[in-house]
Amino acid sequence: MADSRTNSAASPSAFGADLYLELHGPGLRAGLTDALREVVRTGRLAPGSRLPSSRSLAADLGVSRSTVVEAYAELVAEGWLTAQQGSGTRVAIRVAPHRAAPRAPRATPDEPRRRYGLWTGAPDLATFPRTKWLTVARRALAAAPHDAFGYGDAGGRMELRTALADYLARVRGVYAEPDRIVICSGFHHGLALTGQALRARRVRGVAVEAYGLDVFRDLLASAGLHTPPLYVDDHGARVDDLARLRDVGAVLMTPGHQYPTGVALCPDRRMAVVEWARATGGLILEDDYDGEFRYDRQPVGALQGLDPERVVYFGSVSKSLAPGVRLGWMVLPEELIPEIVAAKGHGDYMTSALEQLTLAEFIASGVYDRHVRSMRLRYRRRRDQLVEVLRQRAPGIRVTGMAAGLQTVLELPRGTEGSVVQAAARQGLAVRGLTQFRYEVADGGWQLPELDALVFNYAAPSDSAWAGALDALCRVLP
Amino acid sequence: MADSRTNSAASPSAFGADLYLELHGPGLRAGLTDALREVVRTGRLAPGSRLPSSRSLAADLGVSRSTVVEAYAELVAEGWLTAQQGSGTRVAIRVAPHRAAPRAPRATPDEPRRRYGLWTGAPDLATFPRTKWLTVARRALAAAPHDAFGYGDAGGRMELRTALADYLARVRGVYAEPDRIVICSGFHHGLALTGQALRARRVRGVAVEAYGLDVFRDLLASAGLHTPPLYVDDHGARVDDLARLRDVGAVLMTPGHQYPTGVALCPDRRMAVVEWARATGGLILEDDYDGEFRYDRQPVGALQGLDPERVVYFGSVSKSLAPGVRLGWMVLPEELIPEIVAAKGHGDYMTSALEQLTLAEFIASGVYDRHVRSMRLRYRRRRDQLVEVLRQRAPGIRVTGMAAGLQTVLELPRGTEGSVVQAAARQGLAVRGLTQFRYEVADGGWQLPELDALVFNYAAPSDSAWAGALDALCRVLP
Repeated sequence: MADSRTNSAASPSAFGADLYLELHGPGLRAGLTDALREVVRTGRLAPGSRLPSSRSLAADLGVSRSTVVEAYAELVAEGWLTAQQGSGTRVAIRVAPHRAAPRAPRATPDEPRRRYGLWTGAPDLATFPRTKWLTVARRALAAAPHDAFGYGDAGGRMELRTALADYLARVRGVYAEPDRIVICSGFHHGLALTGQALRARRVRGVAVEAYGLDVFRDLLASAGLHTPPLYVDDHGARVDDLARLRDVGAVLMTPGHQYPTGVALCPDRRMAVVEWARATGGLILEDDYDGEFRYDRQPVGALQGLDPERVVYFGSVSKSLAPGVRLGWMVLPEELIPEIVAAKGHGDYMTSALEQLTLAEFIASGVYDRHVRSMRLRYRRRRDQLVEVLRQRAPGIRVTGMAAGLQTVLELPRGTEGSVVQAAARQGLAVRGLTQFRYEVADGGWQLPELDALVFNYAAPSDSAWAGALDALCRVLP
Repeated sequence: MADSRTNSAASPSAFGADLYLELHGPGLRAGLTDALREVVRTGRLAPGSRLPSSRSLAADLGVSRSTVVEAYAELVAEGWLTAQQGSGTRVAIRVAPHRAAPRAPRATPDEPRRRYGLWTGAPDLATFPRTKWLTVARRALAAAPHDAFGYGDAGGRMELRTALADYLARVRGVYAEPDRIVICSGFHHGLALTGQALRARRVRGVAVEAYGLDVFRDLLASAGLHTPPLYVDDHGARVDDLARLRDVGAVLMTPGHQYPTGVALCPDRRMAVVEWARATGGLILEDDYDGEFRYDRQPVGALQGLDPERVVYFGSVSKSLAPGVRLGWMVLPEELIPEIVAAKGHGDYMTSALEQLTLAEFIASGVYDRHVRSMRLRYRRRRDQLVEVLRQRAPGIRVTGMAAGLQTVLELPRGTEGSVVQAAARQGLAVRGLTQFRYEVADGGWQLPELDALVFNYAAPSDSAWAGALDALCRVLP
């Protein structure tokens, strides 16, 4: 019997489906029948699924084929299995497995599915260039050395870091040598790594903008950092206040396009925050989440270009391609590289080498540039349409912030934000009020003006949903 | 000028390369010339790279085309750029950018590149089924709903969890509802999440096997857990000792194929460790790293099947396909699901939706089963050849452990391990001694026997390197 088992893997049956069976009970046939019945009864094989051929299973188990044939026949007779000419032996459909029905997917509680999901943060997912991505993936995988499929370097594939260094220097004015770049799975991942590294350096606090996403503040807090807010006005975050904050070793900012208010950090403050970092040894964490998307003029370059040793620069494909790709990057001050790489290695390398190679080729071949340009055109048209429709149908509403990015802020009459958000929800329009992005602490010595507004992600709807979303918006605006 | 800028995105030039420029200086043409010179001088545009067409750049900047043409001409005259019919304007090759040359990739210090890299942990990377993977990816991406490209569920894509639930039940006897499965980027990532969750539950220690990888012990230690070792003998880890350990709330094990000694946990101990977990409320962390690869008989089923509420089951494609895919899974006790999902969400979702969908289709369509079977055949042949060659050329060497997995242990005469590992390195053979996997603490009350041995990963070499690796091995064995 040892011999027949030894030969199993080499037999033609080697190309069937695998099935793990626990044989027990008195005789071989009875034991096999019991084991198969148990597999079907407990739902380990789903109704309708096909069993291995008798030849294949016999070879696997090192038993004679007739033993398997007889066991199958018995279970067909008992109603557990069905056998049909040409379709093989399958688990009977009428058998109800004891496996519990899967629960509904765990939706994030505050993100119910709506007809027009306009939550900020996502581009139009229908625009992901599936065919181009696959074409480029084919080229990238064909060219990849074998060791690309191994565990790899925690910093990320050198092909991608090299392509990004050229791209970021050219498009965003980032001072980006490949060696300063660490690939991560998005801004969230990069910020988590940075939070760990800052904490390990005994940094106690990271200032944040008074408007922003709580998820990033929570992330820093969970790394043991306190997060005092900076007042935000029409010129961006008031970085002069950094000097007055105690125990702050870094500041998290969106200087290119403040999120979500949409203002740019003015030139004076850009210089001032860099000077603060130089004078105190602090770091600027620059979240350049939508730097490619500016519609009225050339985008302002990344702050990082002003002092690469004092800025940690973050970017990703989440806005330019799709969040589901899960690829982002950090451009690091030289002294921070070993700590970030070590922190990343600790939690595994995280990012698929195949996707990294594909994105590298996507960028290097110019397909990425063309995609970004076509998206820029698309989103700019959306914004123009929004402005025009509001001018006609809701002339009291002011569209604020720069002509840039994927979202804008619509100012509402005082005291109406709550009711408009609720009315929008009734229209199937998932939008957030600006209030949800506010973050103040009692002892800040200042107070943000009460501002009623909607944060409106005009990039998210698909083409077919866009007109309906605009119409629904106009119906709920006062 | 505002108008010409407004039209830029719609012009045909929209399909060139993007370039970020900072214009300053006295006049428009001089300012543009200065900015372009700066871009080339600082290496932001690499030598040989192509500049945007004059039409495209003019449209982007909202300047006349002749301004750009003149600026290009001036820089060609200065030697910064070259212009050739049909090839456009490019950065001159002879310009040496000030960007520092990339340093050599950060190789892990103890893993120099050798001729025969036989470090354990990696399969033969040349066998990654690139063409099949791409074919399946094409099918998976064509079928994917748009929302697959969004941020997604922290638990992972339901398509993959459903495919895995069927596969793991069928092949490994795992009790795996899709809802119990959380996708991660490999065992390392899964263990990091589990360590966080255990620490949050105020678990203070996790017992580990006295042979194993220090990287996983370090990971648990960095989560604030102490890691007392369990003695390992020919029947696996001595789980009876768990009752004597203080403050231990979980145990990390490789019950199917102890790593790296290659023994299986005997049936008595399988029951005993589950009873310990039930009696104490403890958890078993089951690392099923190579469960698909058993050559002499059917593999023993996963321990998880004995009590799904007391076992956290870990698996991945790192041995069956390739580590570079960065996809793994955890099958969780019901009560642990919310904590793990929350811990995972905190560090971003990490795993590419595209790769998840591809693997789901790879498994559901049976391609994965066929690949695993063909790998099993391949690795079994390797092992048989190893045993046969050693019988002839090094008859004093005992091959220990089960006929399973990707590695085996070669017992050496007492006192020879260090010199054999060194001799191997001189032959370009990268292998580790068993001593490197030992982990004892002084007060364990026991001592592992002094055992000189090599841990030999016969799966790693490519076909072309295999004969040479075997020959080199025989030359260094005493």
